[in-house]
Amino acid sequence: MPRLKLTVAYEGTLFHGWQRQEPPPPEVPLRTVQGVLEQAVREAVREPVTVIGASRTDAGVHARGQCAAFTCADLRIPLDRLPRAINARLPDDVQVRKAELAIDGFDPIRDCIAKGYRYRVVHGGRRRALPPLFRRRLTTYTFHRLDPELMNEGARRLLGEHDFASFAQINHGRETTVRTIFQCKVEATSPSRCQLDIAGSGFLYNMVRIIAGTLVEIGRGKIPPERIPDILAARDRTAAGPTLPPEGLCLMWTKYPESVLMQPLTSRHTS
Amino acid sequence: MPRLKLTVAYEGTLFHGWQRQEPPPPEVPLRTVQGVLEQAVREAVREPVTVIGASRTDAGVHARGQCAAFTCADLRIPLDRLPRAINARLPDDVQVRKAELAIDGFDPIRDCIAKGYRYRVVHGGRRRALPPLFRRRLTTYTFHRLDPELMNEGARRLLGEHDFASFAQINHGRETTVRTIFQCKVEATSPSRCQLDIAGSGFLYNMVRIIAGTLVEIGRGKIPPERIPDILAARDRTAAGPTLPPEGLCLMWTKYPESVLMQPLTSRHTS
Repeated sequence: MPRLKLTVAYEGTLFHGWQRQEPPPPEVPLRTVQGVLEQAVREAVREPVTVIGASRTDAGVHARGQCAAFTCADLRIPLDRLPRAINARLPDDVQVRKAELAIDGFDPIRDCIAKGYRYRVVHGGRRRALPPLFRRRLTTYTFHRLDPELMNEGARRLLGEHDFASFAQINHGRETTVRTIFQCKVEATSPSRCQLDIAGSGFLYNMVRIIAGTLVEIGRGKIPPERIPDILAARDRTAAGPTLPPEGLCLMWTKYPESVLMQPLTSRHTS
Repeated sequence: MPRLKLTVAYEGTLFHGWQRQEPPPPEVPLRTVQGVLEQAVREAVREPVTVIGASRTDAGVHARGQCAAFTCADLRIPLDRLPRAINARLPDDVQVRKAELAIDGFDPIRDCIAKGYRYRVVHGGRRRALPPLFRRRLTTYTFHRLDPELMNEGARRLLGEHDFASFAQINHGRETTVRTIFQCKVEATSPSRCQLDIAGSGFLYNMVRIIAGTLVEIGRGKIPPERIPDILAARDRTAAGPTLPPEGLCLMWTKYPESVLMQPLTSRHTS
């Protein structure tokens, strides 16, 4: 039975997050990415498949490279036409960007070796007095003026393996709060815009949004960047900054070992 | 009685265009930029003012530099705080970006000396197979692959004074269809994105969207750019390309002579 790996993009604005939320009748099911995608896949492959995802993104959070997987008994559509067949059944705020054949038992959560997120902020830098208009669904706004270089000084102190208990929502339900961050960088993209790029082996619940909130506090001068080691050491949620809203967050990519994919038969000969 | 000139930006997606559409009860008024803005201005200045605009943009069309004007009997808010006072009463898809004191009788339609529009297109260039996701409300999509250089060759043939009858929706209701275009340029902004920047003294109804539609026909090789003079000479709507959808269009700026503004009293002395 073929197992399929999909790369999925969505604008999270009008979704109640990734995870299916279908309470028993008479309550109406909420609009979720998983629910909408699963329905489209079922229609495309004409089987009652179950779709699971790598990251259960929250309501309002976007994705460019979410990974989803399903198994079907008999894939009657050529693999290269599968994205188009699913997309034809999807609304305009979610897209399948790639379909690949995975090995039996491929698990998008367990097999994921890294994820990358971006958090976008528009701030009151250099005379800007208005929140974003055309990008308001994709960025978070603060009227404070931020110093992205100061934020970056804080960001690089988060690199490496740390206990991120201070940066996790309480009741996160995970056994260990130790995670490894191998990219953490703040860049100014205009005088009033900056973005945090962060990548790691795994993230705790709300971890990126709490890191972004702490770096914004640093950027406006409320916390010095040298305080990051103390905040980590505290292992206490109240030591870090606020949780920023979901609209600035985007799951940019998810990474898997090559071995999760079926190797295509090539026509190349070894000479 | 002070006359105010406002610079207004909006995302047109959720508006039924600029112009107020309030049929008599029991029908409900449609959500229009003029209606929403006028209501916010009335609350801010506490007078039942009437707001008029330079351009009656269609449903779905965006603006960065629409001009609006109103007269009030007594402006009790300092001019520099007026945008904030109005914005506090506006929804998040419309913003007042500037407020200036205009002369008595300032008319945003009659006094306008130039307008600039941008039309954005995402196309099937270089292997792109999907419509835009995050920018879908701000661009038009065609799965055809376009050649922006060819489009630009067509665009520059529209420069100057011409009879644009071929590029006007029939029943446009204007006496003359002669207009002067002093900027008309197509630029590629990525391998699958391009934009038309067009500026002129005035535009006929749907003129920019029909010009964009004709340039897209040129870009996909259906019309050679050398045909533009013939299309102009035909003075017949059917000679030009299709009217493209509204979401790609944005009114970028509106220009007025300096003389429509009240000159602020300066403290500088002539020596």
